Amino acid sequence: MASDNQEAKDFTPSCPIPPTEYPHILLAHGGGGTLSHQLIEKIFVPTFGNALLDERHDGAVVGLDNNKIAFTTDSYVVRPLFFPGGDIGTLSVNGTVNDLAMCGARPLCLSAGFVLEEGLLMETLWRVVRSMKKAADTAGVQIVTGDTKVVDQGKGDQIFINTSGVGVIECDHLISPSRVRPGDVVLLNGDIGRHGMAIMAKREGLEFESNIESDCAPLADIVLEMIAAGLDLHCLRDLTRGGLASAVIEIAGSAGVQIDLDDPSIPVSEPVRAACEILGLNPIYVANEGRFVTFVDQNNADRALEILRAHPLGEDARVVGNVADGRAGLVTMRTAIGTQTIVDMLSGEQLPRIC
Amino acid sequence: MASDNQEAKDFTPSCPIPPTEYPHILLAHGGGGTLSHQLIEKIFVPTFGNALLDERHDGAVVGLDNNKIAFTTDSYVVRPLFFPGGDIGTLSVNGTVNDLAMCGARPLCLSAGFVLEEGLLMETLWRVVRSMKKAADTAGVQIVTGDTKVVDQGKGDQIFINTSGVGVIECDHLISPSRVRPGDVVLLNGDIGRHGMAIMAKREGLEFESNIESDCAPLADIVLEMIAAGLDLHCLRDLTRGGLASAVIEIAGSAGVQIDLDDPSIPVSEPVRAACEILGLNPIYVANEGRFVTFVDQNNADRALEILRAHPLGEDARVVGNVADGRAGLVTMRTAIGTQTIVDMLSGEQLPRIC
Repeated sequence: MASDNQEAKDFTPSCPIPPTEYPHILLAHGGGGTLSHQLIEKIFVPTFGNALLDERHDGAVVGLDNNKIAFTTDSYVVRPLFFPGGDIGTLSVNGTVNDLAMCGARPLCLSAGFVLEEGLLMETLWRVVRSMKKAADTAGVQIVTGDTKVVDQGKGDQIFINTSGVGVIECDHLISPSRVRPGDVVLLNGDIGRHGMAIMAKREGLEFESNIESDCAPLADIVLEMIAAGLDLHCLRDLTRGGLASAVIEIAGSAGVQIDLDDPSIPVSEPVRAACEILGLNPIYVANEGRFVTFVDQNNADRALEILRAHPLGEDARVVGNVADGRAGLVTMRTAIGTQTIVDMLSGEQLPRIC
Repeated sequence: MASDNQEAKDFTPSCPIPPTEYPHILLAHGGGGTLSHQLIEKIFVPTFGNALLDERHDGAVVGLDNNKIAFTTDSYVVRPLFFPGGDIGTLSVNGTVNDLAMCGARPLCLSAGFVLEEGLLMETLWRVVRSMKKAADTAGVQIVTGDTKVVDQGKGDQIFINTSGVGVIECDHLISPSRVRPGDVVLLNGDIGRHGMAIMAKREGLEFESNIESDCAPLADIVLEMIAAGLDLHCLRDLTRGGLASAVIEIAGSAGVQIDLDDPSIPVSEPVRAACEILGLNPIYVANEGRFVTFVDQNNADRALEILRAHPLGEDARVVGNVADGRAGLVTMRTAIGTQTIVDMLSGEQLPRIC
């Protein structure tokens, strides 16, 4: 790589690199924690910098005459490819559908970009592609354009998939961390930690008493129902890499508010709780693929909860926290015994290649 | 991989795989030749099948109230990362801008999805990101959303980039292979083979008398000038993987027409011709990143040529062929000595990982 870097000097615009904590990329740079944030804040945002990127949302909202569209992208490198409750194909469709949903958009169409490793079984590709189709049908989107590249054996890992998505914004108001304010409540649509623990159990060959399945699911429908009901949703965020904790810390930072979470209110299934205890993990940091938080005004909380609970993906929805006029960027957790602790962002990710 | 395939059976919808020529993915499946086409026709299109994908265009054109938008995706896995005339960053922006241009769209915004290999020099990433920004500024687009994943050392190859793009269609008529008809002429905007030979020379450590630089460039501007002039462009296609030959064969097949190319009219620079001769390659199959063909009615050929030649990226534009009412899907080449040969599609690609 040193020689490639040398070559870089011949052909690319010279501009000194801003100081970064490490001179190389670490797995933790992809984990959704503080190192991921450093990469975004030091390398990507200052270079590409524009108003849309500055929003630091899951997708960009782009004006287009009479329409506003949402545009988002995600690459999927999950290992193993197949896991209880889904596979890389399901994930690649639902993950991008969910990023559109978090912008308040109805998913319109997806792209699919494959990077395949030489030697991949055609049968494996076929099964992944079938899963993508099934997930796309469930979510009501079409995969309308695509691309395939093949890399030499040992230069990839079977299948990487990028899906990008375009959606049409269906609500009149802005959904953004910048709208979160003291007095808002934090709603969660169900139990957390299932995706991460399903992957972990599969990868490590662990057998838990009850098999844990990923919560991987498309969230557009449940979000659009809240929008259709006329609710003023201040902010939405799906709880992928870094889990509930990282999502809420990010929002607290962007909004410049304090967020107080209530541990006993956060649903965690018994198998997930047990598996986390065995492995020494905290479920609030574990990735989900069908869970999200909604920030609404206190006055709208009951109505939002009612709509969430009426949907199959929100039956166990709860109020799990509230926004306070405290220290900007601080997230606290009230424990079962009534004490209050500070929730920190992890530097990396408990589990690499979770999505 | 066998075990992963076994696992596939547990969780994905069962449906027999259609018979494919090979049970594994080969490098040639990513080369833009007949094996790439088999993958698309047997695996992707039948599964995802919808009217937009059926167009087999470089991007999808999606209706949206009063607007039509183009949506496209490409992953970039080029080796080496840096080459004369550009790098993976330049390529990832121009390649996707060009796919939008080939739909007759003005590029609106791009996404950037990075798959980084653990251990990548931060400095290398920085230089690539700077190149993307410079290319985006030149092309007049913004990179508005992104994603970063990191894979373990030995499971990737430094940097893979996916860029997807959204553009606004600026012409009233359809631009599609289905509109190509006998009597059309084929225009080419300049000399071919530079991108492929620049990569090849760099990769193989070959030193040619004059350094060959990639033709990598954004084509939106030159295309939009033809549209602004009111020209009825029947079809546009950029000449990437598989080169001029593959692009024209694809269009002849889709349109159900015969296309006759004229070898002496096709510009090839002396260094490229010499390098191709040494390596036993035919420049019509070599990848380009700033070259495209335009199909217009005979009556519009002069006007189109005039506009192309007035643009810095079309100074050497030529008529290189015409569409005949012959055998559907056939492409012929008239040689310098007046004989006519058949142009076949290659099964793979002369050069893997060219883009």
